Amino acid sequence: MNFKETLSEKTVQIEGILARFLPEEQGFQKRVIEAMNYSILAGGKRLRPMLMAETFRMFGGTGELVEPFMAAVEMVHNYSLVHDDLPAMDNDEYRRGRKTTHVVYGEGMAVLAGDGLLNYAFETACFAFEKAQSPAEYEKVAQAMRVLAGKAGIYGMIGGQCADIEAEEHQEEVTEELLLFIHEHKTAALIQCAMMIGAILAGADREQVDAVEKCAYNIGIAFQIQDDILDVTGSQEVLGKPVGSDEKNGKITYVTLYGLEKSAETVASLSKEAIQILTSFPERNLFLEQLVEQLINRKK
Amino acid sequence: MNFKETLSEKTVQIEGILARFLPEEQGFQKRVIEAMNYSILAGGKRLRPMLMAETFRMFGGTGELVEPFMAAVEMVHNYSLVHDDLPAMDNDEYRRGRKTTHVVYGEGMAVLAGDGLLNYAFETACFAFEKAQSPAEYEKVAQAMRVLAGKAGIYGMIGGQCADIEAEEHQEEVTEELLLFIHEHKTAALIQCAMMIGAILAGADREQVDAVEKCAYNIGIAFQIQDDILDVTGSQEVLGKPVGSDEKNGKITYVTLYGLEKSAETVASLSKEAIQILTSFPERNLFLEQLVEQLINRKK
Repeated sequence: MNFKETLSEKTVQIEGILARFLPEEQGFQKRVIEAMNYSILAGGKRLRPMLMAETFRMFGGTGELVEPFMAAVEMVHNYSLVHDDLPAMDNDEYRRGRKTTHVVYGEGMAVLAGDGLLNYAFETACFAFEKAQSPAEYEKVAQAMRVLAGKAGIYGMIGGQCADIEAEEHQEEVTEELLLFIHEHKTAALIQCAMMIGAILAGADREQVDAVEKCAYNIGIAFQIQDDILDVTGSQEVLGKPVGSDEKNGKITYVTLYGLEKSAETVASLSKEAIQILTSFPERNLFLEQLVEQLINRKK
Repeated sequence: MNFKETLSEKTVQIEGILARFLPEEQGFQKRVIEAMNYSILAGGKRLRPMLMAETFRMFGGTGELVEPFMAAVEMVHNYSLVHDDLPAMDNDEYRRGRKTTHVVYGEGMAVLAGDGLLNYAFETACFAFEKAQSPAEYEKVAQAMRVLAGKAGIYGMIGGQCADIEAEEHQEEVTEELLLFIHEHKTAALIQCAMMIGAILAGADREQVDAVEKCAYNIGIAFQIQDDILDVTGSQEVLGKPVGSDEKNGKITYVTLYGLEKSAETVASLSKEAIQILTSFPERNLFLEQLVEQLINRKK
């Protein structure tokens, strides 16, 4: 099988795991569950659970311990989309070609559905305690829980969202430091969360988990800068949005700060370092390396 | 010291514990943290952490293991208030005599602040793993985490909020079953959460935790029906809201379904049973019994 076929097969497997952890649409609370599932079943690349599963595999992890966390990180990602799309936030009516949750279920129910997904992420992660086979595994699950909460919260993704809202309101004050803070927290934090949890549950040691955190940081930042580059150089057809929309919106990006050439150099060096870290571990996972390469160097 | 003095002293202690667990207002995410703290420092009775601490004490619990969870349950309670007050939900501009979070910080930031509090509740609860002294305590913390997630989520509080929104949209279909579902989930679930976690962390056995769950159910339902009774019989001055506002709003309550007399009987019998359960455990906590009596039989 080539990379694309493997990717597609693994995505199907992840969809199956996700489906097993989604709540059943029944009871007097049926509607909020429908709204939650509507959001999470809208598709998407399932990138975070995939990075988690592949990092887990790279460190020799086997068995089901990682599965509740794969579902949990995807729930966290999706709740953030539901709340981001709200009229009070980005006010988006479409996502992935479907009407957004609040358009279909109403704003109040969309607020609740986002809350429900975030809460259910932790409820789902708790299932891993039942799968733990020893006190040592029990501790790993607790450590993974801490990473999940930390990277999703105010010192992770929510922190990045707050800074992003602030930056949009005070564009004249956006520095490289603030821009990197936003990318690190809004984009990279959940990638770090995914890969670190995969490593922890597979038994990686502290130093290895730190290296994975650094690797995932690079992947997240490079991914984001590549996004900004494509906004300038891509074709509208490939991107699915107007080229140059960032510049038009007066949005400060890495590209508007440093130009295309330096931005491309930064992506290349972050990417190179990320792959170097991945190849430094005792065992390699070629699929994971390809996945990271493809993510960062995508043309759309 | 009489009950009122003890209550006041214990409330001050809880405020101190809460303050220690609140995030510092700094960094690029400062504003969302300010909004979170604005909400949680608005006061309130701190009923849930108090019920948790007193149940913990009743079962012989000592030490700090319970403290992160006391802060966590109060964060969950407060996030639900922040999101409930949003224009998309109840659209309330004042709470406890202060402007609500979205009025002060804007709607987008209030959505984030609610998310931040819910997420930080789990982050805070995770600190208890660090305080655990043995594998057995570690397991208790994990069990408490499951109760926190379960009672706050779609099978707990969020489920009740969903049913409440649905009931308001379809008032003609409100049955006693649905009404009790809403009270059980929207009101009683977090009280169960608080008291069960107190019991679990102190080492109560399964049967005792089940009894505590039943006791807290009674407290929650009785509290809510008493609220509905006071809406009809209380004076506006004491209640702080217009008497009869439920009836005016066409709201179905236990009182509109069964009348004042049967409602008062139900409160009395639920309350009696709750106290019976509390007095059935090996050790008694007289303060907790008084607190429950006062909660249920309050005249305002």
